[in-house]
Amino acid sequence: MSDRQMHLGVFVLGTGNHVAGWRYPGAADSFQSLPVIQAIARTAERGLFDLLFLGDGLSADPNAHPSFTVRFEPVTMLAALAATTTHLGLGATSSTTYGEPYTVARAFASLDHLSGGRAAWNAVTTSGAGAAANFGRRHPPHAERYKVAEEFIDVVRGLWDCWEDDAILADRETGRYIDAAKVHRLDHKGPYFEVAGPLNIGRAPQGQPVIIQAGASEPGQEMAARSADLVFSVVQDLDEARAAYAALKARLPRYGRRPEALSVLPGVMPVLGATRAEARAKLDVLQGFVTDSNSLSMLSNRLGTDMSAYPLDGPVPDLPLPDTSHGFARTMLAKARRESMTLRDLYNLTAAARGHWVLCGTPADVADTLEEWFTTGAADGFNILPPYFPGAFDDFVDAVVPELQRRGLFRRRYQGRMLRDHLGLLRPERRFCRGQAAGSPA
Amino acid sequence: MSDRQMHLGVFVLGTGNHVAGWRYPGAADSFQSLPVIQAIARTAERGLFDLLFLGDGLSADPNAHPSFTVRFEPVTMLAALAATTTHLGLGATSSTTYGEPYTVARAFASLDHLSGGRAAWNAVTTSGAGAAANFGRRHPPHAERYKVAEEFIDVVRGLWDCWEDDAILADRETGRYIDAAKVHRLDHKGPYFEVAGPLNIGRAPQGQPVIIQAGASEPGQEMAARSADLVFSVVQDLDEARAAYAALKARLPRYGRRPEALSVLPGVMPVLGATRAEARAKLDVLQGFVTDSNSLSMLSNRLGTDMSAYPLDGPVPDLPLPDTSHGFARTMLAKARRESMTLRDLYNLTAAARGHWVLCGTPADVADTLEEWFTTGAADGFNILPPYFPGAFDDFVDAVVPELQRRGLFRRRYQGRMLRDHLGLLRPERRFCRGQAAGSPA
Repeated sequence: MSDRQMHLGVFVLGTGNHVAGWRYPGAADSFQSLPVIQAIARTAERGLFDLLFLGDGLSADPNAHPSFTVRFEPVTMLAALAATTTHLGLGATSSTTYGEPYTVARAFASLDHLSGGRAAWNAVTTSGAGAAANFGRRHPPHAERYKVAEEFIDVVRGLWDCWEDDAILADRETGRYIDAAKVHRLDHKGPYFEVAGPLNIGRAPQGQPVIIQAGASEPGQEMAARSADLVFSVVQDLDEARAAYAALKARLPRYGRRPEALSVLPGVMPVLGATRAEARAKLDVLQGFVTDSNSLSMLSNRLGTDMSAYPLDGPVPDLPLPDTSHGFARTMLAKARRESMTLRDLYNLTAAARGHWVLCGTPADVADTLEEWFTTGAADGFNILPPYFPGAFDDFVDAVVPELQRRGLFRRRYQGRMLRDHLGLLRPERRFCRGQAAGSPA
Repeated sequence: MSDRQMHLGVFVLGTGNHVAGWRYPGAADSFQSLPVIQAIARTAERGLFDLLFLGDGLSADPNAHPSFTVRFEPVTMLAALAATTTHLGLGATSSTTYGEPYTVARAFASLDHLSGGRAAWNAVTTSGAGAAANFGRRHPPHAERYKVAEEFIDVVRGLWDCWEDDAILADRETGRYIDAAKVHRLDHKGPYFEVAGPLNIGRAPQGQPVIIQAGASEPGQEMAARSADLVFSVVQDLDEARAAYAALKARLPRYGRRPEALSVLPGVMPVLGATRAEARAKLDVLQGFVTDSNSLSMLSNRLGTDMSAYPLDGPVPDLPLPDTSHGFARTMLAKARRESMTLRDLYNLTAAARGHWVLCGTPADVADTLEEWFTTGAADGFNILPPYFPGAFDDFVDAVVPELQRRGLFRRRYQGRMLRDHLGLLRPERRFCRGQAAGSPA
C-alpha cells in the first residue's frame, strides 16, 4: 500500500448536479437556501472531504440548469459556511474576465482569514456572451481572455504577498500597530492592469489561498501548469484521462514545479445502489425526469451550437470544434463517436451530469473504478458530483468513503486544519511581490 | 409616551472606533479576527440593535486607523455573521465608483437570502486617489462620481426587481422549475452602464435590501432623499443636527416619499463611566494613547489638506472648503470655530472618533442626551461607535439600552426577523424593473 491518498471534492449545486435531480423524491430543490448548503457541508466534513466547490456564472437563462439560473453569489455563500464548518476547504469560481484583481484578491484573502486557511479560488475566463451584456462590454475573444487571465492571476498573487507575515505588530506598549517596512507596494503595470497595492488585509493564513483551474484548452492547460494547485477536469474515458493527466503533469517542470505540486481531480457523478440493478434503476428514474427543453438548452450551451435543427434519433452530427472550445464539447463528442451515439443519447448524457462522467453501480464497483483511475495515472482524486442532495451525497459518504478507507486510499482523519494541509502543500514563501515598502515614496 | 422608537446601529471596527482604542486594557486588537466580530454581533443582538455596520475602503495606508488598513472584505464578513446571528441587520459599504452594478446587486441579494432578509448596502462614492491606483483608473471628479452613483443605484435596484416573487415554481410533477414569464430583463442603457439582466438570483427576502447613504454633500443629500432608507450622518452640535435633519426630510416629498421612509442616524461615540469623573478619566486614558502621527494622518485625510505645515498649538487655520468636501471636514471646522480650538484640540477630536461626536458621561447622562436629540428633531436613532471592543460596547448595551427601554424609547424585543421589520419599513412592491420576460427575444 502506498502512502499516496486520494483528494475528494464535492461540487455543490443545490438542486443536484443532475439537471432534474431536484425532482427525485426527498431531494432538495433550491440553490438559494442556506440550510440545504449547510447540510451538504456537514456531510462533506463528516466524509473528511478536502473541499466543497461552487461554480459560478454571470447571467441567468431561465432554460438552463436550475442551479445555474438561481444561485447564491459563491464567495458570500462560502463565507457563511466558513462560520459553520471547521476543516472543509471552501472553493469558488470567480471570473478574471469580468472582475477586478484587487476585488478578487481581497475577497479570497478575506475568506481565507474567515475560515482559518481554507479558501480556494477557481480562476476562470468567462465564456458566453450573456455575461458581457450584464457588464456593458464586448465579450473578448478566447485568446485575449487567457492573456487577461494570466495577468489577472499574477496581480492577485502579488497582492496576496504584499504583507510580510509579521508586519502586524499591535504593540500596546509603543502604540506601533504596523511595521510599515514589512508592507510592500506591488506597483504592477501590465498590458491589462495597473495596480499599485498594497492589499488592505494582512497575509492570508495559507500564505496564498489555493488556486484551482478548470479549463481544458491549450492556454487553460498552460495556465494550470504555471499557477494552479488543483485542476478539475472533464473526463469520459480512462485512456483519454491518463493521456491528459500525463500531458498536464509534463508541463510542470518548465515552471520549476514538481508533478505533486498539482492535483488533478476529474469530475464524476456517482449513482449508487445496493445492487447494480438498483443503481441502474435509480439512474433511469433520474433520466425519466428530464424534459427535452432541459437537454436541448444544456447541450447547445455545452457545444456552442444550436442543436435544435438536428433530428433527435439521428447520429450525432460531425461538428467542427476549434481548440478554444470547452473541454466538455471535445470530451462528449469523442465519446459519442466511440460509442456511435444518437443525438438523443448525447442529450441524455448531458442532462445527467452536464457532460461529466457518470459512474453507476454498487459502492464496491464505484470504489473499484476510482481506485483504478487513481492508481494507474489518471487522477489524484475526484470531484464528486452527486446527482441530487442530500441523499445521493449521503450514499457516497456512508458507503464509498469507508470502502476507500479500508483500501488505504483515503484519509481516516484530517491531518491539519487548512486546505493546504489536506492537499499536502506547504505554506509558500512570499515571492510574488517585490515592491518597496508602502511607507516609501512611490 | 410616543410609540416612536429609536433605531440603533453599531459601527464595527475591530480595533475600536477610537484610533488607539486597541491599546485600552482588555481591548480587541484586530479587525481580521472572526471571533472578535462574532462577539460584537452577539452583543448587538443581545442589545436588540437594528443593525451592525461595516465601512469600507479600497486601499491600505499603514499610517491610517488600524482598522482602515487591515480589514475583512465587508460582504464576506457579513455573510459569515449571517450564519451565526438571527435578527441583527447586516450593513456594509460597497463602492459605486470602483464596482460593477451586477456584482454589487448579486452580493447584497445573496447576503439578503443568506441572512433571511437582513442585508443593507451603504452606497458610497469612493473619495481619495489611493483607490484609483488599485483599479488602474483616473479618479473621477466629485460631481461625476455622484452621477455614476445615481445610475449605479438605479441599475442595482432594477436588477433586484427582475424576478417576480413567485417566479420560482420548482414543480416536481411537471418538471417546471421557473415560470419564465415572471423573470424580466432589465435592458438598462445609460450614460455610464449597460446592463441587460436578469439577475441570477431570485428576489430577495426583503424585496429590496435596505439602502444606506452617508454623504453630506449636496448631491449626497439628494441621493439620500431619492433612494436611501437609512442615513448615517456626522454631527457635533444639536442645532446644526436639527437643521440638517429638517433639511434632509424636506427633500423627500419631491420623490413622493413620506418623512418616515428615511431614518437619520448620527454617529456618536459614547464614553461611559459610573460617574462623570470616571467617564472623563477613561477618555483621558484613550487620548493618552494617541500618537501625533496617528492624528496628523487622520486629520489630513479628513480635511483633504496636508496639516503638517501648521503649528500644533496655534489656531485652526481658516481652510477653504468646497461644497464637495467630506461632511466630516465641514462639521469639524464649524466646531473648531465655535469653540476657538487650537489645532491640537482638533487633532484630539479626530483621533477620538475620526470627527464623529463624542459623548462622555454616566449612562443616565448619555441617555438624556440621546433622548433630547431623538425627541427634538435631530435624529431617528444613532449609529453607536464604541471606542474599543468588547468592553465599551458591553457598557452601552448593559447600561444605556436598559435606560432607553425604561424611558419607552427603545424596543424590549424584536418585532420581526428582517431589517425592514426593525426599521418599520414595508416590503416594497416590484417597481424598478419594467423589462419584458427573459424568455422573450431581446
